[in-house]
Order: sequence, then structure tokens, then C-alpha cells
Amino acid sequence: MTTLDTPYALVDADRLDRNAARLRDHLQALGVPLRLHVKTSKSVEVANRVHDGGPITVSTLAEAEHFADAGYRDVLYAVGIAPHKLPRVAALVRRGVTLTVLLDTLVQAEAVARFAEEEGLRVPALIEIDCDGHRGGVVPADPALVPIGRALGGNLAGVLTHAGESYFAHTQDALHKAAQNERDVAVEAAAALRDAGLPCAIVSVGSTPTAHAATDLSGVTEVRAGNYVFFDLVMAGIGVCSTDDLALSVVVTVIGHQHDKNWVITDGGWMATSRDRGTQAQAVDQGYGLVADLDGHLIPGLLMTGASQEHGILGTRDGGPVPDLPIGTRLRVLPNHACATAAQHDRYEVVSASAPPTTWTRLRGW
Amino acid sequence: MTTLDTPYALVDADRLDRNAARLRDHLQALGVPLRLHVKTSKSVEVANRVHDGGPITVSTLAEAEHFADAGYRDVLYAVGIAPHKLPRVAALVRRGVTLTVLLDTLVQAEAVARFAEEEGLRVPALIEIDCDGHRGGVVPADPALVPIGRALGGNLAGVLTHAGESYFAHTQDALHKAAQNERDVAVEAAAALRDAGLPCAIVSVGSTPTAHAATDLSGVTEVRAGNYVFFDLVMAGIGVCSTDDLALSVVVTVIGHQHDKNWVITDGGWMATSRDRGTQAQAVDQGYGLVADLDGHLIPGLLMTGASQEHGILGTRDGGPVPDLPIGTRLRVLPNHACATAAQHDRYEVVSASAPPTTWTRLRGW
Repeated sequence: MTTLDTPYALVDADRLDRNAARLRDHLQALGVPLRLHVKTSKSVEVANRVHDGGPITVSTLAEAEHFADAGYRDVLYAVGIAPHKLPRVAALVRRGVTLTVLLDTLVQAEAVARFAEEEGLRVPALIEIDCDGHRGGVVPADPALVPIGRALGGNLAGVLTHAGESYFAHTQDALHKAAQNERDVAVEAAAALRDAGLPCAIVSVGSTPTAHAATDLSGVTEVRAGNYVFFDLVMAGIGVCSTDDLALSVVVTVIGHQHDKNWVITDGGWMATSRDRGTQAQAVDQGYGLVADLDGHLIPGLLMTGASQEHGILGTRDGGPVPDLPIGTRLRVLPNHACATAAQHDRYEVVSASAPPTTWTRLRGW
Repeated sequence: MTTLDTPYALVDADRLDRNAARLRDHLQALGVPLRLHVKTSKSVEVANRVHDGGPITVSTLAEAEHFADAGYRDVLYAVGIAPHKLPRVAALVRRGVTLTVLLDTLVQAEAVARFAEEEGLRVPALIEIDCDGHRGGVVPADPALVPIGRALGGNLAGVLTHAGESYFAHTQDALHKAAQNERDVAVEAAAALRDAGLPCAIVSVGSTPTAHAATDLSGVTEVRAGNYVFFDLVMAGIGVCSTDDLALSVVVTVIGHQHDKNWVITDGGWMATSRDRGTQAQAVDQGYGLVADLDGHLIPGLLMTGASQEHGILGTRDGGPVPDLPIGTRLRVLPNHACATAAQHDRYEVVSASAPPTTWTRLRGW
């Protein structure tokens, strides 16, 4: 690994395996299957390792196509469907993929139903339910819910909700309440459709925080989570994991010092870490990330305090002295937000205590 | 263009040409050549159009290799050299590229000199000068300056400084002072080397703000700038350009509405815009960007207020009513930071009033 040029994205496969086993065991105990969200890793190797061929969630049609090529046959595209994207959906359906779409307006439902009829296909669709005001969706009591379901006709497959606000929880109790609310709202929306005589086979919930905090998933048919394979400092900040669970980091090299300022300068800037400052609003702001040695042991007190495009600045919170890190020293930077940091890289260099180093692929684009 | 799937990066070639002509004319009047920084566009087509084959600055060795493949022969790698990268530098030198490196420590200077001698090459090196405490470099009075120059031996090529703090200027006067200071410090460092009997052929300064604000570049041999080809909201915020000059945008499609909140939801999230919030610290925070129609006319009062990975939220500053933008409507989002937004894309879709649409390539990686 020491011959690789820096910066590069490093995955600790042992931590990945541990994270995967933890959620697998938790959901198994609750009796609900996982629908892995692949938007974090966008890597077939990661998906195969933690969820071999199982149902997946995607954030782009490019992911759907890429994972279909790799044999994945049950794919949920969990971003509201733009009608102009339906031909790409149809092409996947014709390849034998169960490609489920998401929507929350009558305009979209009518477009999907019309398209499906014209093409002689079924395009299974979930109605997005708003459980916490985070982003899209209709609330269960919205008078539009049942008309949307009716407009979908035989394409109606169920409901989906996502507790996006759980990323801003501060306590275990808040996480537990977010999980319970996410489940309750989804089940309530499903009941509203069924009460109107419509089918609702799928009741899909999930986010990494709520998937781990849930204790009751009765009425839910699947849980979506993706970030948990890598975890990150935002997740550690809300208590879903510890910093020892972080499986993704960026390896950088020391290229300079500003001794008067107690700065260490590296060749890893925001191009390598992303501009994500997700911990900025948390109780402990971790800058652009915590810093570990090349073996993954955190260097106490050191963080990445600044970023230019290809320069990182490392320092301490109080501006005090930094450890002696000579030019050429390699370090790991643990990121705020794994989804954003991984997106800056085209591949992962993978290490494990039990296997030789390897490289995993990563998709990008739309 | 309307058949392209969204989100995608759009370049207005007419604005690009106007931006290029403006700086070209300004530097011509000052009698100093431009060394284009290609880190913003990372596109050979952009570089060929604005600076056909001329000297360039790069932020990664991958850029150096890519532009060398395209015929560029005078390349400055403007990130402090990590000694382990020297074999890649040597490979470029052996291809006939004048590949100049940057450094600011004795350790690096000795490593470069030793490597050059062992390989039987000259590796031209600039000493990085700190003009405003922004990042790396030694100040002209630093007792290390002359020893670094001596250690480089025949590889010493000159000095370089970058007024990174000019990105935080607030007035035309502050920009002008930053430009004058950048020039003065570089010339002072060059004089210190020459006074010690060392050569200093190159005196390189630059940033997009200071390149435009400079009125006296006596003693300077080249000016570096890159962002100006596209400009962005950060540059508009400090007064270097107007929002009408922004040549890069992200085209997105409306996929939903939250009428109660006056939100429009699009399929362009932070994956398409980047997480850069560069205007957050400016007098006017532009969120994730201003919003224009597909022809580039700003929609008054509308901005991208929130971003998930593949969802954008558009709204007004005060949360008031938004224009009627039906599902399927395409819009342009003008970014905070062109370097970061462009980095999220693999290509540019290019429009011009005088030519048919085309596609330009973009490099990524290290």
C-alpha cells in the first residue's frame, strides 16, 4: 500500500464486516429484511460482501443500471421520479429488473400510469410519505394520498418514508422516538390506502440512525440503510457508532509545516475529503475530520482544521503544539460524511487483518 | 440539450470567452503573461479555447500527465512536492515537459536536489513564499529561504506566492491591496535570493481576485489564475465579477413541491452542486446557489436553500411564495464555488449563441 500515491480512499474491510454484522443481527431479531442503500459506497464489491445479491436502494438510475449489470434484480430508485427518466426505467424493467420508483404527486402518478400503459409494462411505484418534514412526501392524512394511489392503478406497490431529521438527533431517546415515529407514520399511511380499498404490499422505512434505534417494526416490510457500512463522524456525533467503527478514511501525506501556527500541511484537501462539514452543527465540530496514523489509531487532539482544493491543514482545537509529523508521513483522515467523501474517489484501496490489500470499484455520475 | 438527463454541468461558452478576454486584455496591458490554472475546469477543451498550448498550472500530477498528453509542455505543479511523487515528475521531464515543482522546506529541497542528481535530470523548483498567512510558504525574511535556495542547486528556478486570503476581501480597495502585497512580497523574496547570489528567473504570483485587481506587476514574470474562466458566486460576492459572468451552472429538473413550506424539490442535490458553502461567510449567503431558468436568466429571489445527496430544495430567503415551477421544469443552479461544483461532474455540456451544443471532457483523480 505504501507505493500508492496519495490522496486515496481507504476501506478497512474488518470494520465494514463488523458494521454489516451489527445491523444484520439487529434486523434479524426484529424480523424485517434489509434493503441496502448503495448510494454511500456505490460499489458492487461492498454490496456483494455485505448483502450478496439482495434487494437494494439506489439514488440514481446510473446506480440502478450498474448494479443490474452486476446481477442485482430488485432495485428501488428512492428519489422522486422525473417523468423524463421513465424510458430509462422501462429499459431496466425489460431487462428483468424489478425497478420500483418513488413519487408524491398526482402529476407523477398519472405520468407513471400513462407511461406504463403505453409501454405495456408494470412500473411498481411507492408513494413517498413525509414523517418528519425533512424533505419530500405527503403526510398520511393528506387528501392527496388516496387519489395518488388510485391514479397509479396496478402500479401501486406501497409506501416509503425516510426519517431524514434523525441525522440531527442528540440523544438515544431522540433516536428511538425518530425510529418509532418513522414506523408509525409509514404504517398509518399504509392503513389509509388499505382503508380506501387500495393495495399496499410494501411498507418501506429507514435511515442509518433509525435502522439501528428501532425496537418495533411491526407492519414494516423492509428497512433501508446505507451509510452504516462505512459510518462517519456525523454518525459518531449522534451516537449511532463510535469513531472506532469508521471504515472509510482518506490517506494523505505530510508536505509541509507552519511551525509558528502549529500547522501540518498535507496533500489531501477538499477534493479528497469533500467540502462536507456535517459536524459543524453538532456538539463537537470535527473540522474536516479527525486524524489517525496509517494503522488507524487516532492521534489525540489532531484534526483537519482547513482545506484548500489539494491542501489540508492539520492542527489542534486550541491551536497548541502538534505532534512531530515529518514530511512524507502518511496519515488517515476520518471524514464527516462518508457518502460525500467517498464520492470524491473512483476506487477504494482495501485493507484487512486477514487478507492481502485489494482494490474495489466505485461508480459515479447519473 | 433537452434530451440529456439531469443533473448535468452546463458551460456557457460565450460567457467563458468574455471572461477569458477580460483577463487576457488586463494582463496584456500590464505586460505580464498568464499561466492558466487548469484546476477549475480540468478540461483540455477549456484550456485550448482560452490559452491554446500556453503555460499552465496544475493542482495534481494527474492533471500534469493529462495536459502533457494534450501537448502542453510548460507545466507548474503548484502543490508542495511530496518526495514520493518525484518519480512521476521525472517521467514527465523525460517526456520533454518542463515540469516545475514547488516546495518550502529544506527537507524537500534536499530531496529534489538528490533525486535530480541521481536521475541525471534538472527538476526546476520554485520556493513557495507566504504573502498573507493563508497556507504554506516561507516569508521573505525567513532565515530558511536562502538555505532552501542553495540546497536546490541548479534546480532553483524562482519563487511563487498565492494571495489565498484575497478570497475573503470585502472591497475593491482590499482587493487592490492584496494584489499589491502579493506582488511586493514575491519581488522581495526574489531580491533576497538574488542578494545571496542565487538565480531567481521566475517570480510567479496569482489568484483570480488579485490577477484582476493588480495595477502594478513590475518584477513579476507570470500571473496564475484559473477560477475566472467560470467565475462563481464567491467571486461575485467579493466583486470580481457579476452574476451575469458565471459560465458554469448545474441543470436540474423539478421533481416535487412542498406547498405548505414554499419549497420546490429538484433532482440536483449536493452530489451535483458539491457541499461547498463558500458564500456562507460572505455578506450575502447564497445557500447552495442562485437559480436561473434554462436560458440563464436569474429567477428573482429564488435560491437553493437545502441539499441532500440527490435532492435540492429551492425556496426564497424569507420562506415566502415561490414561482410556479411545474414538475419537469428544468432550471440552472449557479454555484458558490466553480472548482468544487465542476469536480462533481465528468463532462460539460456546452452551449453558445453562435455554435451548436457540444460536450467537453473533464479529468478527475490524482
